[in-house]
Amino acid sequence: MRADGRRENETRDIRIERGYVKHPEGSVLITFGETKVICTATIEEKVPPFLRGSGQGWITAEYSMLPRATPTRNQREATKGKVGGRTMEIQRLIGRALRSVVDLKKMGERTLWIDCDVIQADGGTRTASITGGFVAMAEAMHKLMEKGVYEKIPLTDYLAAVSVGIVSGAAVLDLNYAEDSTAQVDMNVVMTGKGEYVEIQGTGEERPFSAPELTNMLSLAKEGIDYIMGKQRESLGEIASQIGDLVGQQS
Amino acid sequence: MRADGRRENETRDIRIERGYVKHPEGSVLITFGETKVICTATIEEKVPPFLRGSGQGWITAEYSMLPRATPTRNQREATKGKVGGRTMEIQRLIGRALRSVVDLKKMGERTLWIDCDVIQADGGTRTASITGGFVAMAEAMHKLMEKGVYEKIPLTDYLAAVSVGIVSGAAVLDLNYAEDSTAQVDMNVVMTGKGEYVEIQGTGEERPFSAPELTNMLSLAKEGIDYIMGKQRESLGEIASQIGDLVGQQS
Amino acid sequence: MRADGRRENETRDIRIERGYVKHPEGSVLITFGETKVICTATIEEKVPPFLRGSGQGWITAEYSMLPRATPTRNQREATKGKVGGRTMEIQRLIGRALRSVVDLKKMGERTLWIDCDVIQADGGTRTASITGGFVAMAEAMHKLMEKGVYEKIPLTDYLAAVSVGIVSGAAVLDLNYAEDSTAQVDMNVVMTGKGEYVEIQGTGEERPFSAPELTNMLSLAKEGIDYIMGKQRESLGEIASQIGDLVGQQS
Amino acid sequence: MRADGRRENETRDIRIERGYVKHPEGSVLITFGETKVICTATIEEKVPPFLRGSGQGWITAEYSMLPRATPTRNQREATKGKVGGRTMEIQRLIGRALRSVVDLKKMGERTLWIDCDVIQADGGTRTASITGGFVAMAEAMHKLMEKGVYEKIPLTDYLAAVSVGIVSGAAVLDLNYAEDSTAQVDMNVVMTGKGEYVEIQGTGEERPFSAPELTNMLSLAKEGIDYIMGKQRESLGEIASQIGDLVGQQS
Amino acid sequence: MRADGRRENETRDIRIERGYVKHPEGSVLITFGETKVICTATIEEKVPPFLRGSGQGWITAEYSMLPRATPTRNQREATKGKVGGRTMEIQRLIGRALRSVVDLKKMGERTLWIDCDVIQADGGTRTASITGGFVAMAEAMHKLMEKGVYEKIPLTDYLAAVSVGIVSGAAVLDLNYAEDSTAQVDMNVVMTGKGEYVEIQGTGEERPFSAPELTNMLSLAKEGIDYIMGKQRESLGEIASQIGDLVGQQS
Amino acid sequence: MRADGRRENETRDIRIERGYVKHPEGSVLITFGETKVICTATIEEKVPPFLRGSGQGWITAEYSMLPRATPTRNQREATKGKVGGRTMEIQRLIGRALRSVVDLKKMGERTLWIDCDVIQADGGTRTASITGGFVAMAEAMHKLMEKGVYEKIPLTDYLAAVSVGIVSGAAVLDLNYAEDSTAQVDMNVVMTGKGEYVEIQGTGEERPFSAPELTNMLSLAKEGIDYIMGKQRESLGEIASQIGDLVGQQS
Repeated sequence: MRADGRRENETRDIRIERGYVKHPEGSVLITFGETKVICTATIEEKVPPFLRGSGQGWITAEYSMLPRATPTRNQREATKGKVGGRTMEIQRLIGRALRSVVDLKKMGERTLWIDCDVIQADGGTRTASITGGFVAMAEAMHKLMEKGVYEKIPLTDYLAAVSVGIVSGAAVLDLNYAEDSTAQVDMNVVMTGKGEYVEIQGTGEERPFSAPELTNMLSLAKEGIDYIMGKQRESLGEIASQIGDLVGQQS
Repeated sequence: MRADGRRENETRDIRIERGYVKHPEGSVLITFGETKVICTATIEEKVPPFLRGSGQGWITAEYSMLPRATPTRNQREATKGKVGGRTMEIQRLIGRALRSVVDLKKMGERTLWIDCDVIQADGGTRTASITGGFVAMAEAMHKLMEKGVYEKIPLTDYLAAVSVGIVSGAAVLDLNYAEDSTAQVDMNVVMTGKGEYVEIQGTGEERPFSAPELTNMLSLAKEGIDYIMGKQRESLGEIASQIGDLVGQQS
Repeated sequence: MRADGRRENETRDIRIERGYVKHPEGSVLITFGETKVICTATIEEKVPPFLRGSGQGWITAEYSMLPRATPTRNQREATKGKVGGRTMEIQRLIGRALRSVVDLKKMGERTLWIDCDVIQADGGTRTASITGGFVAMAEAMHKLMEKGVYEKIPLTDYLAAVSVGIVSGAAVLDLNYAEDSTAQVDMNVVMTGKGEYVEIQGTGEERPFSAPELTNMLSLAKEGIDYIMGKQRESLGEIASQIGDLVGQQS
Repeated sequence: MRADGRRENETRDIRIERGYVKHPEGSVLITFGETKVICTATIEEKVPPFLRGSGQGWITAEYSMLPRATPTRNQREATKGKVGGRTMEIQRLIGRALRSVVDLKKMGERTLWIDCDVIQADGGTRTASITGGFVAMAEAMHKLMEKGVYEKIPLTDYLAAVSVGIVSGAAVLDLNYAEDSTAQVDMNVVMTGKGEYVEIQGTGEERPFSAPELTNMLSLAKEGIDYIMGKQRESLGEIASQIGDLVGQQS
Repeated sequence: MRADGRRENETRDIRIERGYVKHPEGSVLITFGETKVICTATIEEKVPPFLRGSGQGWITAEYSMLPRATPTRNQREATKGKVGGRTMEIQRLIGRALRSVVDLKKMGERTLWIDCDVIQADGGTRTASITGGFVAMAEAMHKLMEKGVYEKIPLTDYLAAVSVGIVSGAAVLDLNYAEDSTAQVDMNVVMTGKGEYVEIQGTGEERPFSAPELTNMLSLAKEGIDYIMGKQRESLGEIASQIGDLVGQQS
Repeated sequence: MRADGRRENETRDIRIERGYVKHPEGSVLITFGETKVICTATIEEKVPPFLRGSGQGWITAEYSMLPRATPTRNQREATKGKVGGRTMEIQRLIGRALRSVVDLKKMGERTLWIDCDVIQADGGTRTASITGGFVAMAEAMHKLMEKGVYEKIPLTDYLAAVSVGIVSGAAVLDLNYAEDSTAQVDMNVVMTGKGEYVEIQGTGEERPFSAPELTNMLSLAKEGIDYIMGKQRESLGEIASQIGDLVGQQS
């Protein structure tokens, strides 16, 4: 039993509320327990210089925390005049992960901006951002489909992320902040609907970890991601069936 | 009759939801129609260098918009590496306005950070920020009072703000974005509970304005602010009666 | 009687010296008592991106103080690596005010840069900048007229600015630094030759202000601006009669 | 057989040349094939603010590439005015990895700066940096031991890193640039002398990867790291036996 | 004969007007023909970190041009967010040159800031800045002497600067902009009252220069500096006799 | 005799190793005693904006030191977010000096980037950079000649640099760091193969210097540069004879 009463293979309460803000092409408020992230998707009809004329699209993610998303106030990066290393690492991860399930050629020469703004942080903000960013992205692509730009949403599969770790010697799923800050090992896993890995980032914070511990954590991550993808499909409603070739198997 | 059906002296639907995020000492989601701002108040037990040893407190405000708070995406100021002129102007205004009703000596040597983050923008974000920031500030000060730091909340009066302007030749109250972007004259007014001016900022955007037009706009502003202060008192509940010396008269 | 012997409705000694520096298309040294500002106007034959192809012109103002314009030395903004909030606020104000009397369509697709560099500061630098910037702008436009670019200077009216405030309980005109730093209320007013408002920015620094106080200050501002516009016309000499449709009434 | 003639489980030629530059407390030129990195270790007798008074030490790593370390010239980050996301990600990884084998309490209140400057890049610069940084760090700590600051080098274990990946469908060890740029999956593994994981960072660049593929790659990484640690021990000479509790087993 | 009618060994009209701005401890408007620079001296009662506790003083110079000091407008360095290479080079030169005639130990632990702001540029702004900066520095030190801080001004000698160059094959003194921009060789020379060199910076812009050409240029520079020092002494009035040990010889 | 046993007119051991890094079009490791600099030359097939369409080429130099090139660690300029004044001054000098022997018209509309990265510093890094940069530049131009872009290398002459100074009252050649840091006078001289000056930069660090001292230093510089050019020719091998019109005299 964990401090908040969860079993080791249990995620926190996960909710995905679509259409949270009115202007963006896709928008979601995703909550993993007390962690709340607004994910929006913006369509821009041009691409970064290295892709101009290629016929190919691009996904760029940006991540930020409100100053009081955390127990003590963080100085704004705008005020500091630069984006910090942690933020860069996270937004590069989000972008890379989301791109892995997009057919960039079919997407066409446009950019999807995924903005993940953490309203309240309690651990797992990057996994919530990837999970919510996927839904906002699907929503925006669906809007383009409705406009006749696409015949089919150019997503090859589902994508979700979850954290696992070793806390007090035991492998646990979806760490909250209290667990995360005392974890011996911390790992983020991003997987596709087919159950393959897109990203594995494991760090021995307090001590190195063994091969069997790795196996345990990956097995919890798989369980967690299956559950989270159920939530994504629920929130996507009729859009859910348009993603990938794998409709039948998944639902 | 205005485009959205309001009378000229009518504000949009105004809501103030306290405790919107869990970590800050004070926090509010304020909505003026489709404009939504998260205002948080953070207590920091130190002051800027120019006040050290003075026994006096300080209020600092920061303002930001999420990239998709607006119809088209705005680049983040963190990414640009600097805070823009409009943002600076607004956050200086919010801070100056809030300080005007704080007894900085009684506040003691601490800083209150007021963060105003616009989730969705539809005109009037600065007036919503001042109005919501006041409530978050009162909430944070009340928390210090409950801890025994203060005997009484060091606020000398209520404070709220509203925009007025001249649209299609007529003076109107609380402009939404559609009105604001076509306004001939645009004015922001910040007033105290006693009905005195803290800030008047009027700009002839399309054409200069006459003295009678100024009188009309100020009169609408007074009406609007009386209404908005009612909303502030409602949301503050029992804290409301602790502010200023003016309890009887106001309620 | 005020500390420097002026009556409440009296400005300081105001001088406008044209042609102070030789390179710019327009240039002025303006002094309001001990406040001295070099205002220059530069014509650039292109416009900011948002106006390209519109046929319309633009006015951009920049403001700066020499490090020892003030009693103690201010660090240069170039050395700090960023323009501060006060500077941004002032230069946005100058630009907005000047644009209000320019017929941007008749101006043609070019930019007028108005640079206001404070050589010596003693209160009222922003009002001196607007007042002197107007003369430099007229001079530069006149030069274009002489070259045959314009048939008539594309200025719809005169423009000048002055500060008013409440010092020791009394409304006074054109505050110097000693007055400004102890003022209870501080207001900057920008008006046209027709006597209408372009900008009103009033701030209760020490305390809020009442409606009758506002009326008093606006009345002093009107008097001051009438006097200052006389100085502008004098310095403009034969250019003076080319501005607006209002030649007869004004002179 | 790979393009450069290596077997799948074979690293490139690995050399570690100690004392490459004369000023630093520790310094190494490490080469992984055509990849060459100068790693230096600097001892600074103070710690970052968050550790002051804690009695604990810290390891900070910085990473950079010379502009022509690569086939085409990269703009210097100093000229750009900011450190890029890739650089931040790498230097955070190097620092985190090195700290994992340091007994920070025994290290005492001092900082070790590890600077990794890539002279020539041909894939695997971050794994070379970690591997070479470890040797420079040990050398610097040994210098402190000789000065009597330490009785024993405060390193709990060896540490090395290597890349693995899936290229043309096959798992391979220590990818050069040609392989890296066409890899379907790319993974960096950091391990201790005891064979446990400190970091695993795997990314499906071209496609996601399956659990069996993960197992294969981790097994190659283990082989590679054993070999690389032999090179580290060789280069460290008599210092080698002073590291960790594992002297007997290791040498 | 030169284009502006000067002989080869003739400087432009040189004027030094003391007390040009009222706030600084020393201030000068120096003109070399059409080049006009405001030089101010500020006394700050602290030193940079590397001198704290040393009992020694420091001289720091900053240099800037108003945007329209030049025929075409230059973007402000504050707006660009960084000080350019040319500015840095010049302000380093000014500071180094001025320090060379200050007895930093006798100066005491304080900093003299020399700000050189070019109002109008027509060649030779750096030599005018050094020459005028010297006078402003002497004035500020004299003020400290009058306050009883010094018994004697801590300046060991006079200091002035002038440019020389080769224009159309002939060596000439004190180049204006038209000459400077077509010069084959350009040289700045800083000398003391005793006639020794403090700085020589010669550049073959269009072609290298020979030893005899160097000799010619240095001889012109000596002549020019003698003349300019006469102007410095005149402007310093009674302060002039307080500088260095060389009073008799100089006047 | 000097501290390191050299005579006054003797340089340190000078070595030029071509092809030190594999990617650049030209690359050199140059050592002046314990000073080691990697100089690379990159050909870019475009020019800065001010030369577009002119048919002319350009040389741009960048200079940097590794953090531990020096006895104590220097913070990286990338981390500081800006290039310092000393660096700017040096890289402007290198570029200007190298351009002086290039026939920019014959070079064609392309840019040569010369990157000088100091691996180890012991005085004279800027003179080593110019000397080594020249060889890297020649190597890169030779590569273009071999590709048929040029018939002849567009270099009009040889170019090398050396420092001279006055140490303990005596003029000496090629100062190492120990000498440089106690020098009374410090001078850098850049000369062509024909023995003419391209740059002279002399500074009286501790005291001004006299005309005879200048003569002595320039004479040492000439001797040193003759020797150094011999090293350049040796390292250039068969390329040596392709430079300038002066083949016969030089070899």
